[in-house]
Amino acid sequence: MKVYTVLTDELVADELIAGQPSFSADYMRRMLDYNVPGGKLNRGLAVGDILGHLQKDEARPLNSTEMQMFEANVLGWCIEWLQAFFLVADDIMDNSITRRGQPCWYRAEGVGLVACNDYIILESCIYRILKKHFGQKPYYGLLLDFFHETTHQTAHGQLLDITTAPIGTVDLSKYTEETYLRIVTFKTAFYSFYLPVVCGLLVGGTNSEAAFNTAKDICIQMGQYFQIQDDYLDCYGDPEVIGKVGTDIQDNKCSWLVVQALKRASAAQLEVIKEHYGRDNEESIQRIKEVFVELELERVFKEYEQASYEKLSAEISTQKELPAEVFTALLKKIYKRQK
Amino acid sequence: MKVYTVLTDELVADELIAGQPSFSADYMRRMLDYNVPGGKLNRGLAVGDILGHLQKDEARPLNSTEMQMFEANVLGWCIEWLQAFFLVADDIMDNSITRRGQPCWYRAEGVGLVACNDYIILESCIYRILKKHFGQKPYYGLLLDFFHETTHQTAHGQLLDITTAPIGTVDLSKYTEETYLRIVTFKTAFYSFYLPVVCGLLVGGTNSEAAFNTAKDICIQMGQYFQIQDDYLDCYGDPEVIGKVGTDIQDNKCSWLVVQALKRASAAQLEVIKEHYGRDNEESIQRIKEVFVELELERVFKEYEQASYEKLSAEISTQKELPAEVFTALLKKIYKRQK
Repeated sequence: MKVYTVLTDELVADELIAGQPSFSADYMRRMLDYNVPGGKLNRGLAVGDILGHLQKDEARPLNSTEMQMFEANVLGWCIEWLQAFFLVADDIMDNSITRRGQPCWYRAEGVGLVACNDYIILESCIYRILKKHFGQKPYYGLLLDFFHETTHQTAHGQLLDITTAPIGTVDLSKYTEETYLRIVTFKTAFYSFYLPVVCGLLVGGTNSEAAFNTAKDICIQMGQYFQIQDDYLDCYGDPEVIGKVGTDIQDNKCSWLVVQALKRASAAQLEVIKEHYGRDNEESIQRIKEVFVELELERVFKEYEQASYEKLSAEISTQKELPAEVFTALLKKIYKRQK
Repeated sequence: MKVYTVLTDELVADELIAGQPSFSADYMRRMLDYNVPGGKLNRGLAVGDILGHLQKDEARPLNSTEMQMFEANVLGWCIEWLQAFFLVADDIMDNSITRRGQPCWYRAEGVGLVACNDYIILESCIYRILKKHFGQKPYYGLLLDFFHETTHQTAHGQLLDITTAPIGTVDLSKYTEETYLRIVTFKTAFYSFYLPVVCGLLVGGTNSEAAFNTAKDICIQMGQYFQIQDDYLDCYGDPEVIGKVGTDIQDNKCSWLVVQALKRASAAQLEVIKEHYGRDNEESIQRIKEVFVELELERVFKEYEQASYEKLSAEISTQKELPAEVFTALLKKIYKRQK
């Protein structure tokens, strides 16, 4: 949070926008405080962790300094900024009510659709921060490219998600495993897993393309696994623990569970899914959940979870590009998570 | 338009998002075609013009090639992409109905608030184009910085505009000339004038900081002049010629005219402005227009226009950093414009 305060003070006093009247600067500060720091910060904290694992690795001694850890934390915050930017936009599109225990930003007092400009500002702050703190680094160009690419990929994941399951339309023929994995990879895996690892590697002094490719391959699988857990918990998690009541079924989401159900359903079960998926009433929800039980999707998930964990562990220990701990620490945080 | 087609084909086939199902790629292409090419293209065409003037200038012989002109046009399109990104967002925030003779994108069939993600994609396309066509140029880093800075500035101009005149609230104490000029500089001048000139200079091989500073100084003044004309035409232009009926008075806009009126008004006139500005009824609009007539704002504008033109011409001929034609050609296009 100390680093966050440094960054926010710099942004509000930025020379590029110096001299703003106080009512405008105040709005900006309020908007940043409301949207950037309130999450679990998993993605942001991961960058420092990854740098730590790189520094511990004896085979690759790094010129470890406090400065590097500060830089890792700055990049961690940039990822949180990126997340805030996407969440503010998502909440407007999904017409959501609350986020992180408070009203969604576009529903906050005196905001409304001004939020459409606020998330442009949230995003543009990232590049102000990167320029100020990394503008002189040899890897500055690479860093910019990675943030741009991740933004492009995430927005395309969002587009694919929306065009697969448009609000109010149920077209189950689009809910294939292939499309599901594409959505998840683009919408979640790149920014939640690959980008933090890339940031850690760049600060740690790695710029081997082979290392990035290995990281990408593992991070994409981890991101898919993470999102599949999310979909499972939406239906089978404890609302007390996950902090919300799942609504994927009535919201017509292209969730892993429905994709598995469609793959396995008998003709009769398929009819039930077609009739009841994406309908917001208790009976329809129950009918879908019954089909899930008939198809033993909990067991299917647990088998998937185990297989996925084993495959990932094997790949992590086989690859020689990066210290295994970079990945095992990430994997340990999500394996068999309950929330 | 040939260059536009090349760029769009590349974007839809981009390796970063390769393998999208056709329904997603089709949506993307429709979204680009709807939003990017339909404007007057003044900003985009300016880049090639500026390069042309640099190439003609005998004192600074350039290695002029067709390739450079293609690059100038690519950057011109990037500016049009930037403009499309901001216009799609603005129309959502302002709840606008039509744009460029067709429904605003968010009101187009099957779009709605998905437009909130579409403008993220519009923006991220810019960086895909820049990477592909300029990634190997020595000025690639500078180019990225200029696009980032311009985005940051434009979004802050928008924020300042919104916080100065929030929808539904009239607070004329904020409508000072200083705030007005800041809004205009940030919201319009940087992206409409400075960015096209910067792009022309970079392609032309200029990277002198002094040249950029001179260009910035002149472009900001030109942008202010351009927006002041816009505000004047909103009230005094011929609707047949400008293609719309002005609504700044009832929309409570912090327009140049009301700022001038507030500066010059007697106590009685001030009362009229306070009572009637920003009210959407014919009588209020007429009362405001009467005050404008009493204060001879048409004359004030024409004097401003002449003084501004002379000051700009003098500065353009005094500076020795860049060929005068780079600026005079831009100025000629807007001087005494009727639309």
